[in-house]
Amino acid sequence: MGKNCIVAQSGGPTAAINASLAGVISAVNKSNNYDKIYGSLHGIQGVLRDEFLDLSDATDDFIERLAATPAMYLGSCRYKLPDYREDESAYKNIFEIFDKYNVGAFFYIGGNDSMDTVAKLSEYAASVNSGIRIAGIPKTIDNDLLVTDHTPGFASAAKYVASSIREVAYDTYIYDLQSVTIIEVMGRDAGWLTGASMLARNEFSFAPHLIYLPEVAFDSGQFISDVQKCIDKFKNVIVAVSEGIHDADGNYIAAGVASEDKFGHAQLSGAGKALEYLVKEKIGVKVRSIEINVLQRAAGHMASKTDLEEAMSLGAKAVEFTELGETGFMTVIKRISDVPYEYTIEYSPVKDIANKAKPVPVEWINDLHNDVTGEFERYIKPLVEGEVDVFYKDGIVDYLPVGHLVKLNN
Amino acid sequence: MGKNCIVAQSGGPTAAINASLAGVISAVNKSNNYDKIYGSLHGIQGVLRDEFLDLSDATDDFIERLAATPAMYLGSCRYKLPDYREDESAYKNIFEIFDKYNVGAFFYIGGNDSMDTVAKLSEYAASVNSGIRIAGIPKTIDNDLLVTDHTPGFASAAKYVASSIREVAYDTYIYDLQSVTIIEVMGRDAGWLTGASMLARNEFSFAPHLIYLPEVAFDSGQFISDVQKCIDKFKNVIVAVSEGIHDADGNYIAAGVASEDKFGHAQLSGAGKALEYLVKEKIGVKVRSIEINVLQRAAGHMASKTDLEEAMSLGAKAVEFTELGETGFMTVIKRISDVPYEYTIEYSPVKDIANKAKPVPVEWINDLHNDVTGEFERYIKPLVEGEVDVFYKDGIVDYLPVGHLVKLNN
Repeated sequence: MGKNCIVAQSGGPTAAINASLAGVISAVNKSNNYDKIYGSLHGIQGVLRDEFLDLSDATDDFIERLAATPAMYLGSCRYKLPDYREDESAYKNIFEIFDKYNVGAFFYIGGNDSMDTVAKLSEYAASVNSGIRIAGIPKTIDNDLLVTDHTPGFASAAKYVASSIREVAYDTYIYDLQSVTIIEVMGRDAGWLTGASMLARNEFSFAPHLIYLPEVAFDSGQFISDVQKCIDKFKNVIVAVSEGIHDADGNYIAAGVASEDKFGHAQLSGAGKALEYLVKEKIGVKVRSIEINVLQRAAGHMASKTDLEEAMSLGAKAVEFTELGETGFMTVIKRISDVPYEYTIEYSPVKDIANKAKPVPVEWINDLHNDVTGEFERYIKPLVEGEVDVFYKDGIVDYLPVGHLVKLNN
Repeated sequence: MGKNCIVAQSGGPTAAINASLAGVISAVNKSNNYDKIYGSLHGIQGVLRDEFLDLSDATDDFIERLAATPAMYLGSCRYKLPDYREDESAYKNIFEIFDKYNVGAFFYIGGNDSMDTVAKLSEYAASVNSGIRIAGIPKTIDNDLLVTDHTPGFASAAKYVASSIREVAYDTYIYDLQSVTIIEVMGRDAGWLTGASMLARNEFSFAPHLIYLPEVAFDSGQFISDVQKCIDKFKNVIVAVSEGIHDADGNYIAAGVASEDKFGHAQLSGAGKALEYLVKEKIGVKVRSIEINVLQRAAGHMASKTDLEEAMSLGAKAVEFTELGETGFMTVIKRISDVPYEYTIEYSPVKDIANKAKPVPVEWINDLHNDVTGEFERYIKPLVEGEVDVFYKDGIVDYLPVGHLVKLNN
């Protein structure tokens, strides 16, 4: 009998993270080197608690439905391992469990915090001469991981955000009066998803007319001037802003509008709401703000086919690379060409990726700081291509039940 | 040559109002009685301004794409005609334009305000012995029109709201901690759309665990007690609330949290935000509020096939009824049975419908006032059935360009 594998998920949900899980399960079940595949519930915490689902008997139908189910089948955690040189206890627990289950490889699907866990576990494994392979598989709608061309989950969120903005634009065009609609998009420190809103444009609709990213300073005076110009030209103006826009001193625009609730607590309005107030004050036309909120990371019904296929491959390739003896890596997408879109999947040392972030290059933001450039467009365009089959039951979008709930309810 | 027709749209956008327009165009173009069909831009204002699109040459492909395009192809207005006995001037202008275009019938697609226009125009037509037929075609996501079983646009919004809530529920299930998510749904005076959120439930997910409609008084103390019980039982709790919930004295809950922006203006938070603050104060678990906002009425990508088919039929039948000599009516859906779902399309005097509203029957709300009943479920279930083909271009949802922009840009 070969060794077994454990897979877990961590960080915030996306529409693609279960596709990577599906890729891992599928590859292990086809592998001649590995035997069983266990899913750890709630990230690395499931290992510490000895809480697993045996996924070895997953059918093709299960894997297909899993890949198209958003959020996290195994549940998530926000858990940071200490430095093992200062506190070894958690590591000892984890590797005891690894031994108990005869584990040959551990796969962690997540963002840069999760890659910190991968880096620390692989470093500890080396220090105790463990042969267990530790591999990371990227995901985050923020698209802010280093080395990889982009991250699974990002393109599906981009497809949803751009499609929703196009629909909202249609909604604003119906009235014969001036209006401003501000749409707040996720991504506190990186503007990738906000920039992706440019995909909403076509020859008939120029929305979003203005795009503001957190990589450059936001100037309220310039913003009002930008909006006024667009009102004069387009009448109905759509603005996409990152939740994390801030002024030249680093103060979040969201925090600029501090308000008190009826209990006297200070409440922070979002960036979109803050700009809504500003437009109302300075320009006075009809104005509305929309926070797309978690809908943008949960919308499995509008996943990018390209995204889900890449996510599956990143999971499956991680298994293969461990079979070749690799450890302490994250699988990465290397782009070969934009048109036709071609890429390969490689691996890269996780220590160079963990705890770091990749912002939108400033050269991909226009000089006026109110739009993205053609380079951004060339980068994003191929990633949102393709649609996946959407399952409906009784007229409502239908997904695989959440695995950890099924288990815990049994 | 036969007489010509004019069609216009009014009120707020929905995913189905262009399907009714498609139904009117299609029926007129097939009619032996009518010749041309003109689309009035921005509702009745387009008649007053003599601004029309000639839709007589619409191809089958155009009509198919039009039916699947959300918002309003012809644009909208918020225009209320005066009583013609007090001020006849607008009526004279309108009927002069009707004569200029040799109009035999005028079709107005809209909600109860728009039906006021239909009622007044038909009353005026009778008073001047005009033979021009005036017909109303219903639409509103609020589903609050009298006589008709339901209104086009409602079921598509319901399908989107329930599907989005199911996705948000998955998003909340990932963490192993207690949380409350409050989702604010449109419908200030009628809770139909909020009640429809119950369709998000299945055997694996009970979200939304609590539903609050504006038809009954909202009690904050009872709400906190309801939420606490659900946290104890389900850990992750989803609450659906109408934007218009109010206390026993009629005070909106949304207005309960008055806050000031940095310019000292009082700002009203929505009902969802108000309840978010209340849960934070009284219970203290992780809490988030989500306002689905205009996305719920603009999401053509998740239209109900049943809804769009009914909307088309209501438009086409309106043309037929005028050919039979009827005027001053609105087409209505009469339900024959729930299972299998069967209905017919009839017509009803518009004066009995205009300016009135149909709330959710109080018997369809449970005794605890925190859920809807099985009657509500039987009513809503068939309406969201079926999906329509969604067009994508370059990976983004694609629709017919907005007609009045195409015209005005030319």
